[in-house]
Amino acid sequence: MNDELRTRTALLGSSSEAATRVFTTILTRSPISRIDVARLTGLSQAAVTKAVTPLVAAGLVDDSLGVTPTGLPGRPANPVAVVPDAVIALGIKVNVDELIGVATDLTTRIIASDRVPLASHDPVAVVDAIVGMCARLQEPLGDLRSSVACIGVSVSGDVDTATGVVRDSAIMGWHGVELAAALREHLDAAIVVDNDVRALTIGEHWFGVGLGTSSFGIVTIGRGIGSGLHLNGEVVEGAYGVAGEIGHLPLTSPDRICACGRRGCVEAVAATSAIVAAVSAAHGRPVAVEEAVALAHAGDPAAVEAFGEAGAVIGLAIASLVNMVGPELVIIGGEGVVEFGLFEERLRASYAEHVFGSAGDCRIVVRPHTFEDWARGAAASAIRSLVL
Amino acid sequence: MNDELRTRTALLGSSSEAATRVFTTILTRSPISRIDVARLTGLSQAAVTKAVTPLVAAGLVDDSLGVTPTGLPGRPANPVAVVPDAVIALGIKVNVDELIGVATDLTTRIIASDRVPLASHDPVAVVDAIVGMCARLQEPLGDLRSSVACIGVSVSGDVDTATGVVRDSAIMGWHGVELAAALREHLDAAIVVDNDVRALTIGEHWFGVGLGTSSFGIVTIGRGIGSGLHLNGEVVEGAYGVAGEIGHLPLTSPDRICACGRRGCVEAVAATSAIVAAVSAAHGRPVAVEEAVALAHAGDPAAVEAFGEAGAVIGLAIASLVNMVGPELVIIGGEGVVEFGLFEERLRASYAEHVFGSAGDCRIVVRPHTFEDWARGAAASAIRSLVL
Repeated sequence: MNDELRTRTALLGSSSEAATRVFTTILTRSPISRIDVARLTGLSQAAVTKAVTPLVAAGLVDDSLGVTPTGLPGRPANPVAVVPDAVIALGIKVNVDELIGVATDLTTRIIASDRVPLASHDPVAVVDAIVGMCARLQEPLGDLRSSVACIGVSVSGDVDTATGVVRDSAIMGWHGVELAAALREHLDAAIVVDNDVRALTIGEHWFGVGLGTSSFGIVTIGRGIGSGLHLNGEVVEGAYGVAGEIGHLPLTSPDRICACGRRGCVEAVAATSAIVAAVSAAHGRPVAVEEAVALAHAGDPAAVEAFGEAGAVIGLAIASLVNMVGPELVIIGGEGVVEFGLFEERLRASYAEHVFGSAGDCRIVVRPHTFEDWARGAAASAIRSLVL
Repeated sequence: MNDELRTRTALLGSSSEAATRVFTTILTRSPISRIDVARLTGLSQAAVTKAVTPLVAAGLVDDSLGVTPTGLPGRPANPVAVVPDAVIALGIKVNVDELIGVATDLTTRIIASDRVPLASHDPVAVVDAIVGMCARLQEPLGDLRSSVACIGVSVSGDVDTATGVVRDSAIMGWHGVELAAALREHLDAAIVVDNDVRALTIGEHWFGVGLGTSSFGIVTIGRGIGSGLHLNGEVVEGAYGVAGEIGHLPLTSPDRICACGRRGCVEAVAATSAIVAAVSAAHGRPVAVEEAVALAHAGDPAAVEAFGEAGAVIGLAIASLVNMVGPELVIIGGEGVVEFGLFEERLRASYAEHVFGSAGDCRIVVRPHTFEDWARGAAASAIRSLVL
């Protein structure tokens, strides 16, 4: 990091609460008039101006646009905009079999991306792979390489963001892996390790469909069934680092054993591996996931039922989430939504049957997240850690 | 309301966000030094002083204590304290068979209480009963009668606090009852109608065991199984007015039909009526709740199993809540906790079996709430509405 970048990150980290709210408002709604910043933050225009001045001086915010957000020149409302390239972030999603990485600007616009298979789950090997990916992601950045201030890494499981420790990740077989500390030995940037769905939730809140909603949930379907919640103005972190474990609500029969060892978990029926196992058992031979999908599309009763049963349980899980916290919006994402049609009918039926009262006014939106979106979430989590 | 009281309530309602935070901090931690107010609110001491001045002028805050909160005289930190009698609130909990009411000061200390049976669920009759109770609660108040500024009424079910409409209350048989509007025709005070468990949650947050925790849930057991959540600094209201419907998570077998008509709800097994029905069915005759309790204490297998099964399902429900939002603390309350011993063993076993990872560090506290505590929650909701 050069001195200019250090000044920027130090300013973001040391700001008063009011200044932080001003910056996040500009960051997520740029360009925006100062009047609108004042309105959205509840601060006086004088307080907004006081907060903006050092941000402009540090090169994080541009107040020389000379046009209003509506594009009408000459209006007195002087708009301000974030300087996207002022800080560059890297975001890396650790999957069971590969790393997916992106380099983004401050608004999480992707400016470079990379994928690499993971040969081993040994933490040392994964750290090496992440460090190598960070180097490759920076190669195409040119002058912006000196602006990389933060690196976010997201992993499925119980992740303590405060300490950067992956306490428990079933898919990686990790327990108590001090990932942030290991990465800091190799990388000169702020390192943030986060749960993958929580990171995705942060990305959706600041830069996605969550912007402008008072509360929302994300439910991801695929290898795992996860969720993230955004309530009362912030992501729900969990007092002890765990929240959103919708995949382990005991919503199915106790005779269904989950990979986590518990009985009746949602994932015991609805995770991709559970669907594949059900189809394989019905056909008396190992069936790959692609074949299970093809069989279901072709009307094979066992495959149709396996996806349908998964959909029904996911519907119960979403109804449970909605009954419990009453969000404005639920986003269904994850790699499984590519085949959402196989889940949809029974998912919507069981959701409608169990959602309670006017909580059912909650909008349900299906959004195919690419793995790059997950990596972008990791970058968003890293950017957030600079600011909050 | 007299002019002095009007000035006070107008001040509380019109305050800036910073002033509101200053007042709620003084309200909940009184007496407190200005330095601690600044620390807890993140505001400068100058901003605290600016916010305190009009509160003192209006008689809501006292800055003339002359001793520090630690009781050491002569220290420079000038403490401030709320003036408890500056505003009097009434709180009324509408139960299926009676009204319970309290008059409280600003800190929800109870200064009068009243109970009256409800002969009818007809909304007009209930409104009359509430109006009569408000008159009786004010009789013993003497000079403080002129300080009654707000009245909170709490009802089980889907309650829209913003409009004061009880949209759906199963126990009252109410749908779309405009309770706040009907009460305003008779009562000269701010009227707030709230869901009963949400009101209890507000009371616990500001004046109970929730004070000082970052996040907590309340789970109430008894006639219904309800919950309230406090996350990211605020009670979870539900975007459409419904949240905390833990009693309608589909955690039991689909062959158990709930009073709400859905299948497999927690209440279908764990509500008092479900326990009584199970014991009655086993004995082939109607068994009253008191007898069901006595039978369970005497070791009657059917009664022991009915309470045990209820405990197991409540344990699943609490594990679901904890896995989903990861609170610091869960308070188990409600009238059912008087017999908590009948639920406890299987409740704790099923909770421990299904809680996920370090979310299980959540503390579980059992707290017997009296019906006066529920009424006090209604008063807390009304006080909060003056302030926020």
